[in-house]
Parts: sequence; structure tokens; C-alpha cells
Amino acid sequence: MKERLERLTNWLNSENIEAAFLNSTENVYYLSNFYTDPHERLMGIFIFQQAQPFFVLPAMEVNQLKAAGWEYEIVGYSDHENPWDMIRASIEERQLENAENVALEKEILSYGRSEAFLNFFPDANVISVEDKLNEMRVVKDENEIEVIKRATEMADFGVQVGVDALTEGITEMEVLAKIEFELKKKGIREMSFSTMVLFGEKAGDPHGNPGDRKLKAGDLVLFDLGVVLDGYCSDITRTVAFKSVTEKQKEIYHTVLKAQMAALEASKPGTRIGDLDTIARDIITEAGYGEYFPHRIGHGMGINVHEFPSMSHLNDGILKEGNVYTIEPGIYLPGIGGVRIEDDVLITKDGYETLTKFPKELQVIE
Amino acid sequence: MKERLERLTNWLNSENIEAAFLNSTENVYYLSNFYTDPHERLMGIFIFQQAQPFFVLPAMEVNQLKAAGWEYEIVGYSDHENPWDMIRASIEERQLENAENVALEKEILSYGRSEAFLNFFPDANVISVEDKLNEMRVVKDENEIEVIKRATEMADFGVQVGVDALTEGITEMEVLAKIEFELKKKGIREMSFSTMVLFGEKAGDPHGNPGDRKLKAGDLVLFDLGVVLDGYCSDITRTVAFKSVTEKQKEIYHTVLKAQMAALEASKPGTRIGDLDTIARDIITEAGYGEYFPHRIGHGMGINVHEFPSMSHLNDGILKEGNVYTIEPGIYLPGIGGVRIEDDVLITKDGYETLTKFPKELQVIE
Repeated sequence: MKERLERLTNWLNSENIEAAFLNSTENVYYLSNFYTDPHERLMGIFIFQQAQPFFVLPAMEVNQLKAAGWEYEIVGYSDHENPWDMIRASIEERQLENAENVALEKEILSYGRSEAFLNFFPDANVISVEDKLNEMRVVKDENEIEVIKRATEMADFGVQVGVDALTEGITEMEVLAKIEFELKKKGIREMSFSTMVLFGEKAGDPHGNPGDRKLKAGDLVLFDLGVVLDGYCSDITRTVAFKSVTEKQKEIYHTVLKAQMAALEASKPGTRIGDLDTIARDIITEAGYGEYFPHRIGHGMGINVHEFPSMSHLNDGILKEGNVYTIEPGIYLPGIGGVRIEDDVLITKDGYETLTKFPKELQVIE
Repeated sequence: MKERLERLTNWLNSENIEAAFLNSTENVYYLSNFYTDPHERLMGIFIFQQAQPFFVLPAMEVNQLKAAGWEYEIVGYSDHENPWDMIRASIEERQLENAENVALEKEILSYGRSEAFLNFFPDANVISVEDKLNEMRVVKDENEIEVIKRATEMADFGVQVGVDALTEGITEMEVLAKIEFELKKKGIREMSFSTMVLFGEKAGDPHGNPGDRKLKAGDLVLFDLGVVLDGYCSDITRTVAFKSVTEKQKEIYHTVLKAQMAALEASKPGTRIGDLDTIARDIITEAGYGEYFPHRIGHGMGINVHEFPSMSHLNDGILKEGNVYTIEPGIYLPGIGGVRIEDDVLITKDGYETLTKFPKELQVIE
């Protein structure tokens, strides 16, 4: 964590930014190893070019912050105190009232809190600190990779529970409930997004929601789920057939799988990120289904289930060792059904590793 | 919904505010009957003193917005478009570049979006619109009360599932998983907060989290849970004893129950809100446990699980017909155990109705 704070301080120096405030749960966790959602209460890290950082948070969480390893100043406040009054003292000590540039999380910090923060720096330009954090977080270190691997194992397990639960007449919500039940029993407290279990024509809508649709022979079944484990996310999609499968269903399945494998195989350090989407999309388009693949090929994944890099065809960035992202092409035929296959992928020194291990051959569940 | 928009427009007129932007999921739902979480995408309602309102949202959600009943202008944008460019046209049409006052959700709107919004109104003062919405939302109408009642019934059911699941050796997470499993089977897609199931000494920490603590005879078991149903929340806490109960446990249970009942009985139109906390706290303090009741007596509840009014002893507001809030005193003995009893309460014309029906007598589960 110290090394991350140092990198950010170096950036402040290189950009001539005197002070920065970070208050998203995710960036705070990344910089401090302290994971908390304080809801409406103020929590965050103040970092300076020339001075030691400090952390502001509710007093009742101070011990947990120390236990997470924070070694610098802590401003803990009670519910009847105004944290900004206490912050003022810590800022004034650092003599920054003439700061020319300050940085904050422009997409996160509320207008009201920005007023309180900028009040300390009346003449400062306001710079976004998010791009720098995104750039740092996009390359995962060994510890992060180890945690993400455990999170992806849990997601594989969740899909297996779902597949095992498929019986004629069961509803989407019943299958979903079984999956989350078994994951909770393994200690998972939070899914990384709302679990999707969609049957038949329901899977033909990329924005469909699970409900009381009952499973019938001949349905394709789409599972899309992930867990949060030690602050990191996983995200997997698998599609299986129930009892029987038509030629048409086989065709869209194998088209998606071919597109997915092609994008995986192009995954290595040095590849232009946008090319992965194009490679997969070309295969789907050639098969005649281009208009039924309405979303990008994937997204970066880590502390947020959706983070950088964006795996859009417009992304001119280059893959680097330590990048983690999803590859998830799909074909959705309205009123008929859909297929999506999604793996979590790690860029290694000279290629890629598929963190998702659940099989991808078309399975017909009896 | 029209009537709510009109009330807000009247407020703009009375305060001389030319334009307002609301973008929280909750306030947008309250004003439009359209419930959506667009994640990082921009979504919200622009309201004007002198002109018709308009709604900005991702194009793929336009049909759902219309289905929810929105009859005014809609600015729908695709992922490759900049919504602020499209908003500019709709704002310029309304000739507001010389606006003196504009309003936004200060605690919600990000600094980055406020820059884009305020760019349209270079000379305007910025006013918070949240207090007005809080004031409107704090009095529930008949439809809202009907939905909240159904949400509280589901919470009662969840506690019953939890009580029925108690057997020697079961873990907190296993009980939690069963509760959410049965609620999902009834169609509940989202809990209103992280479900709490705490055994024995774990319930002695008001910030405890469920884990693999196994149930033993003599434990107090604390359930705290709620659901989101049609956009509205419920929130219930019950504490039961497993197999046996000590005199000390009985004493803290009955002290909490007495405090809870006293605060309920004071609930009627005209009561000073802060008095409910004081009434309950005095009972707990007289019994010698004042220092073990570290939180306020409750909170308003509706579209947010925590909303106005704050049921703190400092609140000088007056209870009104249609207020909905929780009454939830507790006593937490570190290392020993804890009791909390929480009902959802509605202020009626001349008194109160307890929406939570699960029994409050001390139950010893065999």
C-alpha cells in the first residue's frame, strides 16, 4: 500500500498538484487496504505533495483502519461532530491555502462535498484524480491476481450449482435462489451484480430480468453471475441447453464460442485492446448475426466489476501483463433466445490465462 | 406523479429558481414512477419554473420510461453520444442562459456532472433541491403506504423463516442464506440492506457481521433484515433465545421491549420527533444500560431504507399523518450478547399503526 501512495504522491509532484482527496470505497481500498462503505458518512484519504497523508472516517471505524495497516494521521469524528471542521485543522497545519492545483474524484465526489473541500483552496484549479487511479489499478499485482482467482473459482461453483438445479418446471428465481444460497454457505456475502438466470426467450433480451418463467425442454438457459471476495469481483456467463437442442441453437452457440475463442487467442501483451472486439464481432457478423450482438466484447474487472480497460472497439490502448478483463460475446434473438459466453482473462508475460474454468462445450442437461 | 411535479414547480416559483436537475434513482422514481439504476450512465429530470420538464436517459430505456407514464419531452442518448450535448439543445430552447438560481441534488450530483450542468447557467447561484424532496417524501400517500405494508409483510416472513431454521450447530450464514432463499422464491430481487443474523456474543456488537459462528443453546439470536418491493423498503429486527434464557438476558430483553413500546405509544400527530428517542433512552438508562444503547431510536423509511425524518433526540420536527419510520432501541453487552427490537411504524390520523406484525414477546426456540 505504501508503494501505491508513493506512486500517487510522485504523480502529484509531476503534475504540480498540492493536494488530492479520494473518497470512493474502491480507490480508498486500493490505497489503504481498508474496505468500507460508510454510506452517507464522510470517509476518504487526503494526500499531499509535500506532507504526510491523513485519513478521515467515523470514529467507530478507526480501529479497523489501523488493523488494515494505516500508519499515518487519522481524523476520526463522531456523529455529532462536523468532519470538515476537523479536517480544516489538519489542512491548515500543512499550509496549503495558496494551492494552485488540487485533485479530486470528479465522477464520485458530490457537489456538496466539493464545496466543503474547495473552500480550503479558494484559488485552486480542480483536476480529476480518477484517470491516474484507473491507470494504476489496470495492472494487477500478484496478490490481486490471487484474490481474483479465488473469486472466479466461486463464480464457476455458482454456475455448477445452477446447472445442477435445472429440472422441468423450476423457475428462474428458484434457480437463482439456490445459487446464492450455496454461495452464501461458502461465506460469500455479496454478489458483484444482480445474478441473471434466464430461460428460453427470456435470454433473447440482453436486458432481461429473472422472474417466474418455468423451465421447459428445449430452452437455452443463460447464467450470468459473479461474487465479491476480499474486495475483488468475478463475472462469468455460461449458456446450456435443457433436454434438447435445435440446429439453430447449436449454430448460434458455436458462433459465439468461435468468436469468444478468437478474442481470447488474440489476448497477449502488445495487442491493441479494441482489436479483441473487432475480431469477435467480425466472426459474428460473417455468420449473419452482427445486429444481434449489441454490446462491447467485455470490460476490465477488479475491485469494481466494471473497471478499466473498456474492451470497446474504440480503445486504442495496448494490453499489458497484469490486465484482467472479461471476454463475453453474445447473440440475442428477440422472442427466441440467446447465448453469451464470458470468461475472466488475465494477461500474462507472453499470452493469457483463462481464470474461468467452467467448460465451454455446449452441454445438453438431462 | 403530475401532482408531485407541480408541487416542485410551485416551489421553484416561490424560491425564484429557474431550473432544477434531479438525478438520484430515488427522487427520479418519486417524481416519475420510473425506477432505474443507470450505473455510470447519466439519467435524470430537468424541471423549470416556466417551461415543460424533460427527462434524459439511455435510449434503450425510453420505452420503459413511457410505460411508467412519462408524458413530457424525453432526451434519449446512445452510448456513442454525449448526453450533455443533447441536453444543451433542450435547455437553449427554454432560454435560461441568464438564470439567477438553479437547484441540484448537492449530496448526489458528482462534481464532474455539476460542471457540465452549471456550464449552462454561468451566473447562477446553486441551491440544494434535496430538502424540498425530503419534505415531500416524508409524508406518504395511500399508494406508498400500501406498498410499504406489503414490504413489511415480506420482512416478517423472512424473520419467520430464520426462526424456523434455528437448530443446534447451524451457522449464521446458513440461516441468512435460507432467509434470502425463501424470499427470492417469493420474487424478492433485492434486500434493502445486508441481512444480519447474529448469534450469542456476536449480537453484542452493533456493527457485527454474520459469519460461521455456530448456534448453541443459551444464545440470543438477532435478525435484522428488510426487502425492496416495488421500489419501497422494509426493515425489521427481532431477537429470540435458543433453547434456554438467563435472567440477565430476560432483563435486557424486557428493558428493550419496554423502551420500544413507550416510544411507539408516544407516536401520534403532533409529538416532537426527538421525544421518541428520549422516552426510550430514559427507560434504558434508568435500567442501568444507557451506555449500551449507542444509536438513535430509528429512521424514516420509504424509497430509501434510511430517509427523513431522522429519529434523533435532536430532531425538533413534529410527527405528521403519513410519516413512516422505524423504532429500534437496543442494548449491546460487549462479549456477552445483545437485543434489538425494531418495528416499522405509520403515523395515522390520530395515532400510529405498527406495520410490523411479527410477535415481540420473548420467544425461546426449542
